Amino acid sequence: MNAFLENLDWSCQANESLVCLGLDPELARIPTKDIVTFNKGIVEATCGLVGAYKPNLAFYEALGLAGFRALEETIRFIREVSDTMIVIGDGKRGDIGHTAAAYAKGMFDNWGFDAVTVNVYGGEDSVVPFLNYSDKGVFVWCRSSNPGASDFQDLEIKSQANGQIPFYKHVAYEIQDWNKNGNAGLVMGATYPDQIRETREICPDMPFLIPGIGSQDGALDHSVRNGISSAGRRILINSSRGLIYADETKNFAKGAREATRELRDNINAILDSLGLPW
Amino acid sequence: MNAFLENLDWSCQANESLVCLGLDPELARIPTKDIVTFNKGIVEATCGLVGAYKPNLAFYEALGLAGFRALEETIRFIREVSDTMIVIGDGKRGDIGHTAAAYAKGMFDNWGFDAVTVNVYGGEDSVVPFLNYSDKGVFVWCRSSNPGASDFQDLEIKSQANGQIPFYKHVAYEIQDWNKNGNAGLVMGATYPDQIRETREICPDMPFLIPGIGSQDGALDHSVRNGISSAGRRILINSSRGLIYADETKNFAKGAREATRELRDNINAILDSLGLPW
Repeated sequence: MNAFLENLDWSCQANESLVCLGLDPELARIPTKDIVTFNKGIVEATCGLVGAYKPNLAFYEALGLAGFRALEETIRFIREVSDTMIVIGDGKRGDIGHTAAAYAKGMFDNWGFDAVTVNVYGGEDSVVPFLNYSDKGVFVWCRSSNPGASDFQDLEIKSQANGQIPFYKHVAYEIQDWNKNGNAGLVMGATYPDQIRETREICPDMPFLIPGIGSQDGALDHSVRNGISSAGRRILINSSRGLIYADETKNFAKGAREATRELRDNINAILDSLGLPW
Repeated sequence: MNAFLENLDWSCQANESLVCLGLDPELARIPTKDIVTFNKGIVEATCGLVGAYKPNLAFYEALGLAGFRALEETIRFIREVSDTMIVIGDGKRGDIGHTAAAYAKGMFDNWGFDAVTVNVYGGEDSVVPFLNYSDKGVFVWCRSSNPGASDFQDLEIKSQANGQIPFYKHVAYEIQDWNKNGNAGLVMGATYPDQIRETREICPDMPFLIPGIGSQDGALDHSVRNGISSAGRRILINSSRGLIYADETKNFAKGAREATRELRDNINAILDSLGLPW
């Protein structure tokens, strides 16, 4: 099995959790003086409850050099508290091959992420430089969770191999085809569970990163049922603001811990009901 | 006229140049000890010959914090040598609305770029947070210059308004529609001059950022003729490696200066031949 998939499966198994916690701190919303203190509090409180952390690079870049220093410290802290935890760099980078190789170097060699999110608009040679890091995960943004997702991703295209299909399904077929190292995954928005099911049929074993859900969201059940592989795994249900801002007072860490435990337990209850317990 | 367009037109007019110089330094190729020294040498030698500079963020991110510090110093130096020069942050950022707003803050408020490149995959709400900075330019990646461009950008889609058209043309129509502030532009690869012509028909006044050309490239003539607006302006012909590595010895700055002047003069000769001199 691919080394990244092994690490991902193990990271989830260790905490019996398919939760990915999104570290998207915004100075205006956090009750601490800086985002490193905030992130450390969140990580310390939740590191036994999640399968992965996902810092979203936009929220660090928004703060310039200080933000990137905070990102570096956050990653270092996660490594300190767990040497098996998967850390996903959510940057959705994508560019022509030569530039994509520089981004891959930045994300994997510099920041040291275990996996990244990438943007597929530039085609195969814009994704392959990431996939070439065969022990790292590459989640391709396939069907997003926002209103504008339908502007382009749902356009009907004529595929030579698969006939008239929506654009995002063509992306899924292509990634399945390019996935020579077995380290590709897809980002599939939770707000569209039917699309998750159809895409799981195309890519039976790929890990799906599923954002767009809060712990109370009705779509959770559908996303889990439609997203899991036949073994009942290979999804990461991501929540960011729903977890880190569960309590916006000084008790933020405890609030995040409770919200994260609830989300993990809700997911596990669905797995149990399907006869696929840990 | 939109403030960014005015600034762009003025920046080009000041040096009578439609050249955009791409600052994509790689430690392995530069003859100086660091990339700041290299960039400063290039900028000092070429600042009277270009209409814009375009640092590609990948090459700074590849070096981590040190790279981002170098980017900050490079931008500061460009501002020192010219207070009218357009600086384009080539990051091709794109994500759902809330995240896109954080990226826009990073690119415009933190780095202080005059314009950015963005990725359109997430649809309208992923682009609007950039367009909302109405005095800044937003170049949407439309048709790229790499081999993989055709994987998705050339797929035939059925548009309600415009019938069966290639994906990239649909993107052009959409951007034209979303361009309420008049600050949108497109990235159009020079390797496909026919596509540039067809897109210019859709977007008559938008600035086009045209990468993928070297100073000797036969496509230059077609790109300029097909790309210019009716006034003979509104294109930036970008060259990165073709200019900054024109001479890979200690004489790199002089080499870049000569290559940049040659590209500028070749473009201006084409404008002259069309009866559209400065």
